[in-house]
Amino acid sequence: MVEVIMSGEILKTISRAITTLVSECRMHFLTKGIHSRAVDPSNVAMVIVDVPKESLESYRLESEKTIGVDMNRIFEISKSINARDLVEISLVDDTNLRIKSGSLDYSLALIDPSAIRKEPRIPELNLPAKIVLDAGEFKKAISATEKVSEHIVLKSDKNSFTIEAKGDVERMVFTMAAGELREFNGGEARSMFSLDYLKEFCKVAGSGDQLTIHLGTNYPGRFCFDLVGGKVRVEFILAPRVEG
Amino acid sequence: MVEVIMSGEILKTISRAITTLVSECRMHFLTKGIHSRAVDPSNVAMVIVDVPKESLESYRLESEKTIGVDMNRIFEISKSINARDLVEISLVDDTNLRIKSGSLDYSLALIDPSAIRKEPRIPELNLPAKIVLDAGEFKKAISATEKVSEHIVLKSDKNSFTIEAKGDVERMVFTMAAGELREFNGGEARSMFSLDYLKEFCKVAGSGDQLTIHLGTNYPGRFCFDLVGGKVRVEFILAPRVEG
Amino acid sequence: MVEVIMSGEILKTISRAITTLVSECRMHFLTKGIHSRAVDPSNVAMVIVDVPKESLESYRLESEKTIGVDMNRIFEISKSINARDLVEISLVDDTNLRIKSGSLDYSLALIDPSAIRKEPRIPELNLPAKIVLDAGEFKKAISATEKVSEHIVLKSDKNSFTIEAKGDVERMVFTMAAGELREFNGGEARSMFSLDYLKEFCKVAGSGDQLTIHLGTNYPGRFCFDLVGGKVRVEFILAPRVEG
Repeated sequence: MVEVIMSGEILKTISRAITTLVSECRMHFLTKGIHSRAVDPSNVAMVIVDVPKESLESYRLESEKTIGVDMNRIFEISKSINARDLVEISLVDDTNLRIKSGSLDYSLALIDPSAIRKEPRIPELNLPAKIVLDAGEFKKAISATEKVSEHIVLKSDKNSFTIEAKGDVERMVFTMAAGELREFNGGEARSMFSLDYLKEFCKVAGSGDQLTIHLGTNYPGRFCFDLVGGKVRVEFILAPRVEG
Repeated sequence: MVEVIMSGEILKTISRAITTLVSECRMHFLTKGIHSRAVDPSNVAMVIVDVPKESLESYRLESEKTIGVDMNRIFEISKSINARDLVEISLVDDTNLRIKSGSLDYSLALIDPSAIRKEPRIPELNLPAKIVLDAGEFKKAISATEKVSEHIVLKSDKNSFTIEAKGDVERMVFTMAAGELREFNGGEARSMFSLDYLKEFCKVAGSGDQLTIHLGTNYPGRFCFDLVGGKVRVEFILAPRVEG
Repeated sequence: MVEVIMSGEILKTISRAITTLVSECRMHFLTKGIHSRAVDPSNVAMVIVDVPKESLESYRLESEKTIGVDMNRIFEISKSINARDLVEISLVDDTNLRIKSGSLDYSLALIDPSAIRKEPRIPELNLPAKIVLDAGEFKKAISATEKVSEHIVLKSDKNSFTIEAKGDVERMVFTMAAGELREFNGGEARSMFSLDYLKEFCKVAGSGDQLTIHLGTNYPGRFCFDLVGGKVRVEFILAPRVEG
């Protein structure tokens, strides 16, 4: 038995985060809350979603439970639910996921979790630079650099965090000094990433949401979003591109 | 002689309603008001538009008059007129329809009414269920079910009115109990309809407009919209689909 | 040495005006301010942009200077800058244009001005009719006539200014009497113009901006926009179409 009540906004956020990378995924209803993670088909990025039970209006489990779902369907349906409306999610006979909100009653056949691609191990990354900023600021910079190149260099040194894009005839740099960041440890790091992925990641967040970036040099980066007023944590791990 | 003054909103509403199903139509300037109706090319749906003379700012006829017009043109032009602006509509020499509003003076060649497809007889339908609700609520449900299927079942019984859509792996139901409806007679009915048509119908209405649905079992349904604060009545009659 | 500080809105306006007709252009940093002009590839229209130094927050020149730039790139980048933010524009080593605003630092390789199409001589036109109106009103009329035809006749006589479009079965006229115009000299004029160009011109302006039109008979027209509260002047000269 699984019976969860959450806000429409949380359902929208979870499903949007997962569908950034995959359509089908496993969802774990754990004692501590809801957890899901997946790797994109080309093995370049991983998404990790956590919703602690404290973020939910109600959370009742008989025992911990893992299901397989087509998250694309849930994302589509979540668009018909208002962010502020309450949503009740439950399992029916271990074969269907049921979503109720207001006059809406929706059910979706589950997928055998063993038929879904094996979940990734979360890598242990030792990343020297930590940058905390408004997700909206990062999103704006990503959207601007996109006009110049298909990939960007994220760089951190003791003075500032920079986002750099180079085209054939142009160059764009966003520089944020320590004082302009919410938190910054001045660690040395420099890695290049694909803008396509970063753009997708940023779609989960808006202005006011907090983004924590952990960077190394030519190493995967971690992009951790605190969403829905801190109720949902979405982390993306992205492999670097080789500069050349 | 025909000289009518109406709000831009009424002109927009009439032309949008008709063009939901056809481009060319006959318009009747009757003593009691403006009337138009048409059947779509595949004979699945009918639209009936009525604007009583009381809804018009001014309505002067020498005698009742029928004209043929390309309503698509009028719908296009109506987009350039503000909803609150007054529009003067008149006939010029029985060959042109003239639309004036502010600095705009537009004239459109009429079409010989006999060259337009014969108008439908309005069928007498004996429909047991009557449901009155906010058009915006219905529109929202239609827009959600569209993600699941291409057709929906509308059902009424003594307890509630339901909108159901079934896909291969999912099912969506909107249930509105008597207390959530503006008016409801609890009649027994169940018919399946094409979502494409219902979506088009809903475009004439917004939140706050009233929709009255009359339903039977495997029988055509009537969808009657009270628009522009009750000044315009648009009714659609839609043939059912056979469930299979 | 060239160092200019202007509002984001001015940069957006300059680059949008030029890119209406061409991508690459020459920019002149003159003692009196910034000037640029260009003719579209089919020689039908000319754009002339002037920003007097008084419209700039700061304007420092060692000597007058002409550069060649890909204005499309600047227009794209300007979309990432807020209208109210200040933008610093400077030259780096005569090889790059540098644009700084907030955390953004962008540089673009210059183009050899001699590689850009020769600039047009500004023709001396003796145009009898002068019409001054709200650019938003003109824009609205242009957008409406577009539904009827691909070209319009602009006409002025002692009573009024009219915009006329004729289609196969319809005709649209906007009439503005002297009293409805900001200024009007009642000069006699009548010329036909392509709507495609006029639509593009209007994109630089919004409601509240002032447009001054100078017209002759079967003669080029001048469309002079006062933009950004009068800080930027954009003039388009458009060749007439032959009525037939």
